[in-house]
Amino acid sequence: MRSTKLHVDAIRKLLMAGATSRLDRMLVRLRPADLANLFGELSPGETRALVEVLFTAERAGITMRELPREILPEVLEVLEDQRIAKILERMEPDDAASFLFALDEERRGPVLELVAEPRQQELRWHLLYPEESAGSVMTPRVMVVHPDDTAEQAIDMIRKQGDKFEAASYLYVIDVDRHLLGVVPLRRLIAASPDQPMRQLMVADPVSVNAWSDREEAAAIVSRYNLLSLPVVDEQLHLLGIITVDDVIDIIQEEATEDFYRMAGLSGEDRVFSPIGRSIVKRYPWMLVNLGTALLAAWVVGLFQNTIAQLVSLAVFMPVVAGMGGNGGIQALTVMTRGIALGELEFARVSHAFLKELTIGLAIGAGVGALTALLQYLWQGNPYLGLVLFLAMTITMITGGIMGAAVPLFLRAIGRDPAMAAGVIVTTFTDVVGFFTFLGLATLMLTYFQ
Amino acid sequence: MRSTKLHVDAIRKLLMAGATSRLDRMLVRLRPADLANLFGELSPGETRALVEVLFTAERAGITMRELPREILPEVLEVLEDQRIAKILERMEPDDAASFLFALDEERRGPVLELVAEPRQQELRWHLLYPEESAGSVMTPRVMVVHPDDTAEQAIDMIRKQGDKFEAASYLYVIDVDRHLLGVVPLRRLIAASPDQPMRQLMVADPVSVNAWSDREEAAAIVSRYNLLSLPVVDEQLHLLGIITVDDVIDIIQEEATEDFYRMAGLSGEDRVFSPIGRSIVKRYPWMLVNLGTALLAAWVVGLFQNTIAQLVSLAVFMPVVAGMGGNGGIQALTVMTRGIALGELEFARVSHAFLKELTIGLAIGAGVGALTALLQYLWQGNPYLGLVLFLAMTITMITGGIMGAAVPLFLRAIGRDPAMAAGVIVTTFTDVVGFFTFLGLATLMLTYFQ
Repeated sequence: MRSTKLHVDAIRKLLMAGATSRLDRMLVRLRPADLANLFGELSPGETRALVEVLFTAERAGITMRELPREILPEVLEVLEDQRIAKILERMEPDDAASFLFALDEERRGPVLELVAEPRQQELRWHLLYPEESAGSVMTPRVMVVHPDDTAEQAIDMIRKQGDKFEAASYLYVIDVDRHLLGVVPLRRLIAASPDQPMRQLMVADPVSVNAWSDREEAAAIVSRYNLLSLPVVDEQLHLLGIITVDDVIDIIQEEATEDFYRMAGLSGEDRVFSPIGRSIVKRYPWMLVNLGTALLAAWVVGLFQNTIAQLVSLAVFMPVVAGMGGNGGIQALTVMTRGIALGELEFARVSHAFLKELTIGLAIGAGVGALTALLQYLWQGNPYLGLVLFLAMTITMITGGIMGAAVPLFLRAIGRDPAMAAGVIVTTFTDVVGFFTFLGLATLMLTYFQ
Repeated sequence: MRSTKLHVDAIRKLLMAGATSRLDRMLVRLRPADLANLFGELSPGETRALVEVLFTAERAGITMRELPREILPEVLEVLEDQRIAKILERMEPDDAASFLFALDEERRGPVLELVAEPRQQELRWHLLYPEESAGSVMTPRVMVVHPDDTAEQAIDMIRKQGDKFEAASYLYVIDVDRHLLGVVPLRRLIAASPDQPMRQLMVADPVSVNAWSDREEAAAIVSRYNLLSLPVVDEQLHLLGIITVDDVIDIIQEEATEDFYRMAGLSGEDRVFSPIGRSIVKRYPWMLVNLGTALLAAWVVGLFQNTIAQLVSLAVFMPVVAGMGGNGGIQALTVMTRGIALGELEFARVSHAFLKELTIGLAIGAGVGALTALLQYLWQGNPYLGLVLFLAMTITMITGGIMGAAVPLFLRAIGRDPAMAAGVIVTTFTDVVGFFTFLGLATLMLTYFQ
């Protein structure tokens, strides 16, 4: 990876010199994934030229499937429709489909028109499945056999057309109507005697996933049962395709990033390398939502201006109460969101998780509140303000714990992503509750302060 | 998964009735991963009894390897040393090693003493590698062949001992000194003619990882090159073992959780199902750090008590300035942390990423600041306070962008985890800068306010 820059410089020189055959030889020595890395560094013109060379060398497909999803749109933007159509024809079907999804929506139709059959048909069929569904990430290229085929026949089939099947590790056994019956690991096939039928070798009733399920569910199944690929079926258990473990790894990485991003109110397309203008446009709406919630908290403070005017020290401790409540809430939220994402809630009852965060909020709130009260007393010598601090921090941290646990569960219950906007909901609540209890209690006890 | 409770109830009844043979028949029908799920629901006594039945049925090993890492310690706690030793003997070597790591450190020695050879030796050798290294997660069980072996000989070898190798998809080619020479996918072996030597079939010079590298690096390589397993070697390229793709998925999930947790100052052992007392103890130190930084911000506010006393509206807008700066900082931080974790910084230069977050901070800060100033003017009619708000919010959001980008890069540069404590550093900075610029500018302009 340290050599990326070296390679970029060399490629740039060879492109400028038009030394395509030397460039060719250099590119052959690079692995597709390493080659894909270089694209981020090239100008639009250089990208076009490099794709041209790769295409001639029949390496455009395998290289471009390794491009990170996030820079793919930028690379595709500089290529002509005709060229993209040709690349789509040469790629694996599932890679071609994700390429098509990466194109601007208005370009998909025209590009698809240019793709030769049967690929065009395959791709149209892929677009039937919703984005982020199991169907949208599967490949229809599966090695299938029938229950009465012998090991010898299966081996013969692999010998004849094995190269078409990317990284296959299993044979799938289907009946004449394509119903999924079983799965035969290649290792078992190798160890079999030549006349053994698939019926005997297969593991019957294999795990599968419905094509309309969320791709995240497919990834969870592969991870849970340690599979190398997962069959995708329809309601009648017809085999439609498979999802391979390398795609599962991509899904898991993307979903983790999505959760991270959603907690901070970021769009998935806002990456380190995405253009500044786009990032600004994407972040603005969220910051306006944040501003709205901040102004709500400010309005609560505004209710107590008279109290603050009489005891300015209150303004000093306001951020402590609200901030600690917010931090406690974010901790509860993180544990719960990740627990949902990893399916840990199956191991723990929801009521237990809820009660737990409430108890932690009480225990830490009371402890930290007492400490703050003590420090305040040593600093400013006002025992009544200390009492108000203690009570307000305890109540706010309990609120943080409850909200941190409740918000993702509630979002999931109404069918939304548990991480979606959860951070801002929780901190708004703790801000409002924190300011209200702290300043409200101070107002009630104001006579003791003076 | 909805059926977990049903299964638990049934198992509980059969355990109580001592109906082990019926329990046995029920357990055989459950997949190991689903069975592992049930453990979270059982009492210590029930856990012990269930493990006993599983052990007799020779299913304890395959079931317990599916236990989530986080509840493993609790299950192991209730089992006797003797029983654990027996289970270790029957497990795959890499699973056995991660079991051993899950034991309390003082129990590892005594349990290991009870493990029969050669497994005891294997495990001692596993413990040589540091925790979280590639070596600690590899399995030494690899199917190896020599370059002059024919396809027929290789197939014969698989037939004889294939069952010992979990989910193997490749043969590894080594010389007499165990130097790694190449790799043969099983699919290619099947398609080969019987007398073809491995030398001809193998992909030479395969990607590998050093045993002392971080396991995260191993996971990144597998994900990048779409491998089903990755050979682990020493400095002289001797083959030591392999890391399989199912372990890679676990590593990716755990590392993502770690990053999530570190951003919120949580310990990895603080899960939805972990005991309340332990969570409180783990969260306390971090909340004390948070309190320290909150008090630092409070101290800054304290410097300006006189100003606030003269214009109480300032207290109303304090949380808006600091909060918006903090949110902007967390966004920049999230993009950068995730970018580092996914290796995206290879595609974008660091200086570009840095400048980008600075620009976004300026653009959003100025926009949101101007809007806040306008709203303040409509609400309270004070143009000078509006100007102060605009300037303070712009400066604070720029600070947030710079710090959000800089902190993880700095932490990585000094060899720490980029997510470690980054959230609290960034928000402390934005709080202090926000309060200082807002109240400081207000103090300077105080004469205009009246």
